[in-house]
Amino acid sequence: DVDKERLVTTMEEQAAIGATDGGGLHRLTLSDEDKAIRDWLRDEMEGLGLDVRVDAFGNMFGRREGTEDLPTVLVGSHMDSQPYGGIYDGQLGVVAALELVRCLEREGIETEHPIEVVNWTNEEGSRYQPAMQGSGVWAGVHDIDEQYDQTDENGARFEDELERIGYKGDVPAEPTEEYEAYLELHIEQGPYLEEGGHDVGVVTGVVGFTWGAITFYGEADHTGPTPMEYRRDALVPAADVITQIRRIPGTLGERTVGSTGYIDAGPNSINVIPGEVTFTWGFRDPSDEVVEEAYQRVLAEAEAAAEREGVEWEHEERMRAPSVEFADQCVEAVAGAADDAGYDSRYIFSGAGHDATHMTSLMDTGMVFAVSDDGKSHNEAEHTSWEDCHAAVTTTVNAAYDLATE
Amino acid sequence: DVDKERLVTTMEEQAAIGATDGGGLHRLTLSDEDKAIRDWLRDEMEGLGLDVRVDAFGNMFGRREGTEDLPTVLVGSHMDSQPYGGIYDGQLGVVAALELVRCLEREGIETEHPIEVVNWTNEEGSRYQPAMQGSGVWAGVHDIDEQYDQTDENGARFEDELERIGYKGDVPAEPTEEYEAYLELHIEQGPYLEEGGHDVGVVTGVVGFTWGAITFYGEADHTGPTPMEYRRDALVPAADVITQIRRIPGTLGERTVGSTGYIDAGPNSINVIPGEVTFTWGFRDPSDEVVEEAYQRVLAEAEAAAEREGVEWEHEERMRAPSVEFADQCVEAVAGAADDAGYDSRYIFSGAGHDATHMTSLMDTGMVFAVSDDGKSHNEAEHTSWEDCHAAVTTTVNAAYDLATE
Ligand SMILES: NC(=O)NCCC(=O)O
Ligand SMILES: NC(=O)NCCC(=O)O
Repeated sequence: DVDKERLVTTMEEQAAIGATDGGGLHRLTLSDEDKAIRDWLRDEMEGLGLDVRVDAFGNMFGRREGTEDLPTVLVGSHMDSQPYGGIYDGQLGVVAALELVRCLEREGIETEHPIEVVNWTNEEGSRYQPAMQGSGVWAGVHDIDEQYDQTDENGARFEDELERIGYKGDVPAEPTEEYEAYLELHIEQGPYLEEGGHDVGVVTGVVGFTWGAITFYGEADHTGPTPMEYRRDALVPAADVITQIRRIPGTLGERTVGSTGYIDAGPNSINVIPGEVTFTWGFRDPSDEVVEEAYQRVLAEAEAAAEREGVEWEHEERMRAPSVEFADQCVEAVAGAADDAGYDSRYIFSGAGHDATHMTSLMDTGMVFAVSDDGKSHNEAEHTSWEDCHAAVTTTVNAAYDLATE
Repeated sequence: DVDKERLVTTMEEQAAIGATDGGGLHRLTLSDEDKAIRDWLRDEMEGLGLDVRVDAFGNMFGRREGTEDLPTVLVGSHMDSQPYGGIYDGQLGVVAALELVRCLEREGIETEHPIEVVNWTNEEGSRYQPAMQGSGVWAGVHDIDEQYDQTDENGARFEDELERIGYKGDVPAEPTEEYEAYLELHIEQGPYLEEGGHDVGVVTGVVGFTWGAITFYGEADHTGPTPMEYRRDALVPAADVITQIRRIPGTLGERTVGSTGYIDAGPNSINVIPGEVTFTWGFRDPSDEVVEEAYQRVLAEAEAAAEREGVEWEHEERMRAPSVEFADQCVEAVAGAADDAGYDSRYIFSGAGHDATHMTSLMDTGMVFAVSDDGKSHNEAEHTSWEDCHAAVTTTVNAAYDLATE
């Protein structure tokens, strides 16, 4: 039984670190704010008697022993945020894991399986790509040295920033024991739960996706005396492809989405034809084939646009995540916990990527979704009522307890 | 007779101030580099015995008296540059005016009309808009207090920056005496002279133009779980309009051009739907009616795109310059000077804006164009051979001498 008042207090405490004027959160991975929230989390975990460890990629774990020599149940999410993002996102998932331990401590309950709370490094993928980076390294999907060498927009190296904030730990960034299951609570970030009037979501899987960037190289020149047919404008083909990225999904699957979130043009002067423009693509779908098709289509559009405008181009895929389905054991534990607590739940396939994606190759995995008001996220206006937070945390705590007991 | 070696030396001297690694010039208006080149120019002018004055908008004048009480002949251009622009642009025009005085001094020639060398403030219009700002204020086209209040991308106020570099002078920014004519040498910045194999251009007028910015206000949201039909993406309509800005000119005049040089998207994160995007338009044509038509068309495209995507929008016209035709007296002086020196010249209508535009309302005005290799400008690769520089400077010096003598 989760104490709602304490849940709200804990959520408000964490949301104060990196709070924006607009009521959101600006807590980019490996920033000073990220260091502050990590310090806070370490204190919370130590206060609950957990055995805290930090791995070489900054992933933070807090361990509570079980009564038997059984594989561990891992519960958590991430504390980093988007630029001017919301305060619920993955934060609620880490707080839920803390609540799990608090409930067990308060009731003096021991579990057969050990339990670990986890805070993954850089789930958001905004400052450094790929997203779900810490969990991906831990799962062996990414090479740690390659990821250390990533640089942000200002050229700051990942490993240097990790050391700067003091969170390059001494434990290897990989599973060092056996795990029974991974459970993650996250806000839905989409409109389906609210629209159906549900209290909580039982997640059955996560869409696959491709992320990447295209750069067009044209030639900076004067916007006045340069006749249209002489131009090699790097922005026009970028604009052409961006409009196609918006339209490709309509020709593919029912749940396909496609977006450009980032664009940078140079020299970016009102009377200079842009000489170099970089922008990103992102496509997602429950089917890996559809994702591959969207990827092929955007490259074909870029090639056609480059030819039309007579410019050079290159591309770089920055992330490819397969679509995954969750384990019956976990889906059933979540659905059962929601039912037992009298919540109206529905099965839902996640349209966002989650650290859970990477856990599926290592252990049984499941997720709980909290209602997202208006489906909004990655925005200061992101909102989940405390009622809905409480329902999702309660479901997570009980499902995790179920998985941690024989 | 202009000394080519000295011309080259002077050009190289000025190009050293704000030089880029790529052989270009980065000397934005009111920057430290602009201060340095102004100091250099003041020394040059004083060294030639000119009476130097700086007006309240930073326009710099160097006066050489005439033998009669006649209106002044004004000769010059501008010393500021685009971001990572070229070293010839308007700089060659100010150097030509210095050369005019040097030739007269060397030969001990006095003219009936007084002669003034001028360096206009912020011709480029990149850091602050509008372009041709100093000449526009001086001609009474813009209100000086409004222009003082302009801010750059970082919020730095024009007047504060002008004071910071010490070039807010004590002379009013307006004509304080009568002027006979204005003559300006500038590089063509287009391909026509080179393609026709000409030595120098006799400019007959300048295109009109409209510049402005459009902002779309959508809603930042997650690029994954937000279904396509729920989105209010601010970048997609921007991309739609940018592709139209490229295409509108093809449906208008033969010399109509249209461009987007600047774009800024927020929050600019790979997995966030852009919530706010600002970008610019620029259209030019020899006919004011065509310019107005292009302006109406881009607004109609923006309205349609905003409706398609369900976003709000606003726009701001940042500059509207009328098309102008130059005075016969000046056109003939330039054509005659080119002929006399044995140069192959052609008449040409300028596709770029020039300070000369604003002078047409005050006095007879004319321009000389130097050949632009490959028509390139606003780019470090901008190039004019010393041969072609010499031809254009010689033409300017002789035409100005012609205008300054009865
Ligand atoms: N859940 C979430 O926002 N993850 C960040 C990576 C993504 O864009 O899906
Ligand atoms: N000549 C020139 O580049 N002027 C700057 C304003 C314009 O873009 O025309």
